[in-house]
Amino acid sequence: MAPNTENLTAVLMKKDDLRMEQRPIPEPKDDEVLLKMGCVGICGSDIHYLVHGSCAGFVVKQPMVIGHEGSGTVAKVGKNVKNVKPGDRVAIEPGVPCRRCEFCVKGEYNLCPNIFFCATPPDNGNLCQYYTHDASFCHKLPDNMSLEEGAMMEPLSVGVHACNQANIKFGDNVLITGCGPIGLVSLLAAKAMGATKVIMTDIVEHRMQIALKAGADAVVDVSKGTIDDHTAQIKSIFGGELPRATLDCTGFEASMRLAINSTKPGGIIVLVGMGCSTDMKLPLTAALSREITIKGVFRYRNCYPTAIAMVSSGKANVKQFITHNFNLDQSLEAFDTARHGKGNPVKVMIHCSK
Amino acid sequence: MAPNTENLTAVLMKKDDLRMEQRPIPEPKDDEVLLKMGCVGICGSDIHYLVHGSCAGFVVKQPMVIGHEGSGTVAKVGKNVKNVKPGDRVAIEPGVPCRRCEFCVKGEYNLCPNIFFCATPPDNGNLCQYYTHDASFCHKLPDNMSLEEGAMMEPLSVGVHACNQANIKFGDNVLITGCGPIGLVSLLAAKAMGATKVIMTDIVEHRMQIALKAGADAVVDVSKGTIDDHTAQIKSIFGGELPRATLDCTGFEASMRLAINSTKPGGIIVLVGMGCSTDMKLPLTAALSREITIKGVFRYRNCYPTAIAMVSSGKANVKQFITHNFNLDQSLEAFDTARHGKGNPVKVMIHCSK
Amino acid sequence: MAPNTENLTAVLMKKDDLRMEQRPIPEPKDDEVLLKMGCVGICGSDIHYLVHGSCAGFVVKQPMVIGHEGSGTVAKVGKNVKNVKPGDRVAIEPGVPCRRCEFCVKGEYNLCPNIFFCATPPDNGNLCQYYTHDASFCHKLPDNMSLEEGAMMEPLSVGVHACNQANIKFGDNVLITGCGPIGLVSLLAAKAMGATKVIMTDIVEHRMQIALKAGADAVVDVSKGTIDDHTAQIKSIFGGELPRATLDCTGFEASMRLAINSTKPGGIIVLVGMGCSTDMKLPLTAALSREITIKGVFRYRNCYPTAIAMVSSGKANVKQFITHNFNLDQSLEAFDTARHGKGNPVKVMIHCSK
Amino acid sequence: MAPNTENLTAVLMKKDDLRMEQRPIPEPKDDEVLLKMGCVGICGSDIHYLVHGSCAGFVVKQPMVIGHEGSGTVAKVGKNVKNVKPGDRVAIEPGVPCRRCEFCVKGEYNLCPNIFFCATPPDNGNLCQYYTHDASFCHKLPDNMSLEEGAMMEPLSVGVHACNQANIKFGDNVLITGCGPIGLVSLLAAKAMGATKVIMTDIVEHRMQIALKAGADAVVDVSKGTIDDHTAQIKSIFGGELPRATLDCTGFEASMRLAINSTKPGGIIVLVGMGCSTDMKLPLTAALSREITIKGVFRYRNCYPTAIAMVSSGKANVKQFITHNFNLDQSLEAFDTARHGKGNPVKVMIHCSK
Repeated sequence: MAPNTENLTAVLMKKDDLRMEQRPIPEPKDDEVLLKMGCVGICGSDIHYLVHGSCAGFVVKQPMVIGHEGSGTVAKVGKNVKNVKPGDRVAIEPGVPCRRCEFCVKGEYNLCPNIFFCATPPDNGNLCQYYTHDASFCHKLPDNMSLEEGAMMEPLSVGVHACNQANIKFGDNVLITGCGPIGLVSLLAAKAMGATKVIMTDIVEHRMQIALKAGADAVVDVSKGTIDDHTAQIKSIFGGELPRATLDCTGFEASMRLAINSTKPGGIIVLVGMGCSTDMKLPLTAALSREITIKGVFRYRNCYPTAIAMVSSGKANVKQFITHNFNLDQSLEAFDTARHGKGNPVKVMIHCSK
Repeated sequence: MAPNTENLTAVLMKKDDLRMEQRPIPEPKDDEVLLKMGCVGICGSDIHYLVHGSCAGFVVKQPMVIGHEGSGTVAKVGKNVKNVKPGDRVAIEPGVPCRRCEFCVKGEYNLCPNIFFCATPPDNGNLCQYYTHDASFCHKLPDNMSLEEGAMMEPLSVGVHACNQANIKFGDNVLITGCGPIGLVSLLAAKAMGATKVIMTDIVEHRMQIALKAGADAVVDVSKGTIDDHTAQIKSIFGGELPRATLDCTGFEASMRLAINSTKPGGIIVLVGMGCSTDMKLPLTAALSREITIKGVFRYRNCYPTAIAMVSSGKANVKQFITHNFNLDQSLEAFDTARHGKGNPVKVMIHCSK
Repeated sequence: MAPNTENLTAVLMKKDDLRMEQRPIPEPKDDEVLLKMGCVGICGSDIHYLVHGSCAGFVVKQPMVIGHEGSGTVAKVGKNVKNVKPGDRVAIEPGVPCRRCEFCVKGEYNLCPNIFFCATPPDNGNLCQYYTHDASFCHKLPDNMSLEEGAMMEPLSVGVHACNQANIKFGDNVLITGCGPIGLVSLLAAKAMGATKVIMTDIVEHRMQIALKAGADAVVDVSKGTIDDHTAQIKSIFGGELPRATLDCTGFEASMRLAINSTKPGGIIVLVGMGCSTDMKLPLTAALSREITIKGVFRYRNCYPTAIAMVSSGKANVKQFITHNFNLDQSLEAFDTARHGKGNPVKVMIHCSK
Repeated sequence: MAPNTENLTAVLMKKDDLRMEQRPIPEPKDDEVLLKMGCVGICGSDIHYLVHGSCAGFVVKQPMVIGHEGSGTVAKVGKNVKNVKPGDRVAIEPGVPCRRCEFCVKGEYNLCPNIFFCATPPDNGNLCQYYTHDASFCHKLPDNMSLEEGAMMEPLSVGVHACNQANIKFGDNVLITGCGPIGLVSLLAAKAMGATKVIMTDIVEHRMQIALKAGADAVVDVSKGTIDDHTAQIKSIFGGELPRATLDCTGFEASMRLAINSTKPGGIIVLVGMGCSTDMKLPLTAALSREITIKGVFRYRNCYPTAIAMVSSGKANVKQFITHNFNLDQSLEAFDTARHGKGNPVKVMIHCSK
């Protein structure tokens, strides 16, 4: 069934050592599918593994296939597979949980301690030509969506989960700190879920321009002025009200401080961008005595169907964020572009099939 | 109707200047009742006002009647009052919200920015003989409850709200940091709401003994050992599991750090004791990347009926915490006892009627 | 302040006896505003009172001013009023609750047993020139909304509350039975809240055409075929899935039966149209053994701000439903049009100011 | 490992034909355990299959091993099993879902359309000596619980799920219609979850006596008087209030009617006993216009750990309901006792090991 035995694969050997190599084409198990990979986006964590050899406590100790924002076309299915068939194009949800632990049976499978997750050591990712994955975490793409968009379902799912955690609904005013890729997909998700006004912050002009183009109602440049100035600006733009929900998509202490300063009593702050995990010094008592709830986001759960519906229905334009494209055999160049921010990329996309 | 015109009242003139003075007996407005005060407990915030002249940002700028943990007997009712009648004994919920703001109409009246709250400047409290209060925030006591217990409904309501914020329910393992009065009432509330096991921490032996007597399943002395030791102890006592919910009843950074270290992924930490409101330095990213939710408690809402039911049904023994008793004319001595911890008081209770 | 003492008013004397009469211009109390009425829409319940002298258990026993879907301009404010000022245009939320009962303090004020509600006997409505109302239930209209749209906030709030009860969110498939005014505003609310596909049912062709024009993705004519046919059609239009949420906007047993037959396990059915309150014979066991939740809608709570945001943000076009317009002195003709369905009205609107 | 090859098994050949036969001892698969069965209780549905050959739409078309309320001791474990080991005593959760469908990944595994469920045709049950089951649905019993109590975790889990659906919490007044086994376990669950007062109804005196002994605060005999009488009695016993939550544990239209008549506005009715699934004629509009929510219970999800904690902590005494005991080879007699109600059994328990 598989057309040939060559499977060009991007392997992170160790810190600062990413290589392309040929690997055998795997066989799907009974509950798996073999996928001819379509597109794989490069994520900040991929770069973190490349540059630091670790990310958020996970350490690359042996060669690991990189890539977890992927889409592909079903080439072959295991004997138990019913949800997809050869020829179906799918978005690949990169985490496959154990389905048996207390988190899995409650539906909080993103917290499963036994989860397999593409390109989180020691689990291999899918930046390659052929890849096998559990079929039930392959989400069929509707006809009006491309494989590029399919690959974008991974970051968009983070935005969806962030908005779920914040319980974003029609009529909400939302503050998003940070106009990076996660801030931008959170913007799309918040707008699709009914946020009436979204203000975003950043310190880099061209990123704020992208946010405005993507639908942010206003941006606040936090590179100048005091935190109280920024809060006053935010309040003024929202017509004299503070936002009920703030999504911090930077992971920086300063952004969390602004979030605490700018969120309404009884509101909610969601930390989406995790950044480095050193301590944060924050006026937590002030936040909590106003009964602001602080939550986090770890990946996502049950978000792919929503993310796909957002794009398929035309409510979320993720294509606009794909600024740079490469073929699989140009992967090292693609990573170089993402790593050094050459040409101000938002999302660098690698196309695995010609 | 009122038996005489004397109304002995405890007035905090300014920092370190508490005095007893006679004030006129007030007349209830249409929606109010006149109460012959029964008991008033002394709270940590009362002491804070006495010692510092301020608490949590509220500053005593003019003489203020102290006292907000009160109960009394209805002496007279305004013409619109229907829920109570003369002779009824009531627990006094000290906050009367505006009923019109966005928080009030949603039922989150504790966040009302216009709330009247006894003994929070500039609002007068009720440590006196006669006091008028909005009738609908006077909660009738059942026959099997005393006025002392009625006064305890205020701190118990904080415990109830803390457990509501943490969504405590049957089967929960709960960690409570701090064996002070708020930790103890939170223990009672958690147990009544179905927590199967509650572990409490402190650094003072006699306080931990009180917690054990009040129903804590175990205590952990955090005055010695490392944070990881304490977490290991907690995990071991809970049979190898971390608690789903932690109530921090100290307001200290070290306790919040232990809470973060010891709460299960997907769990919840509620900061109940607010302590001083300087910054806290905490591993917030670590907490949030495990999707731990952090919430606060500001007073309480809709908790008095629950608190009364807890005591009336025999599920919560608040009387055990009343360690010291004084008459109204001994108020200065009572405050002295509470302020200097003479005789290790848990709750100092002042009896306003002989 | 009030320009004259004439106040033309539509009074329902008794069943089948609606009259226009002059009444004095009232004075606002401290918490009230005097409104120069703008527009008042005619609702099905108004017609029910006119035709039957009663509705849903409420009986007209004395002359009652009709009208509860109103908007107006503030002419004068009571001394406590802060949220609006003379000249402000407002949508009038017709229910003013007691703010003191157990429902009010929890934020479920629509269930307040002491609520004043315009044109529900014995409370007077606002189809007149001048009317006083509690200021905090007067919701200021943004500049981009007209008084006609302001009057439409009442039915739209029913749709918002229905969608809140069903917890409609992005990605939901929704079935709405009935293309009458309540079905149509529920459609607008569901779409604004993120429903991706809405199917509506009816038995009258021109009503289904209006639904399609207003944004329904498909309509199902239930005047022919069996219930299983209809369910099959619905499932097929939703791409092989049953809807998670169904809003019954007819109040008919047959519609509820279709709702039960067509809603997904674990889903929700909200009865929005109450119809006559005789018994319904339904396969309830079948519904409940699939863990379908059945809820109702009684008016709305905290929905006006959302409804206003929907229209102001351009997400909900309520103007399209105003098919017939009359001046206040043509009120009897307006009611005649609504009562007999002359010219297939969706919403008949009365303009109180020239 | 298995001590012999004999495995006495109770097989329902067809309607009215239950037989004991020897079957081979099965081998556990990789994720399974082999259990030496301890106790198996007889449930109403077992009797329904015996008497009618079907239950709630499921039809016995081929011989089926009966029994689904079971406990046992682990005899052998498959190679992937980690949660239990040989010698562990476990309560057997009889439903093993597919873990892959949309319901499973959301944690609503009881709604899984592909679920295996003991003794629901065509799936075999576990009234036998040796039985294999998915290990993760075998819940280890603490040392202070017996195998009899382990078997009772199945009905108690129904009570737990019913109370979860009704969101029972401290302070609730609860009405339970029906004093049969499901009513009684719901009583235990409601009390453990903090219900302050529970009123139960029935028409049989000795069943009401059992309810009172098991902790019901009062019983109402609905065999005489009108529905309004019963509601008045209930209201009076609850001190002038209607209950917030009603659990119907009969499945009868008359009980649902009483539930609708007796539940507070904004409250909730949970249909626990499904009874026969013909139509019900009910004043649904009246219920829904008071915003009463109506829900159902289909088996349970994530309830075994809670049920075990209830018994282990001494909060729920399930042993009191085991009124009749038989050995496995007396199974036909045991079913005869349950079927004909000989000696007024509450729960008939079969002991599979001597």
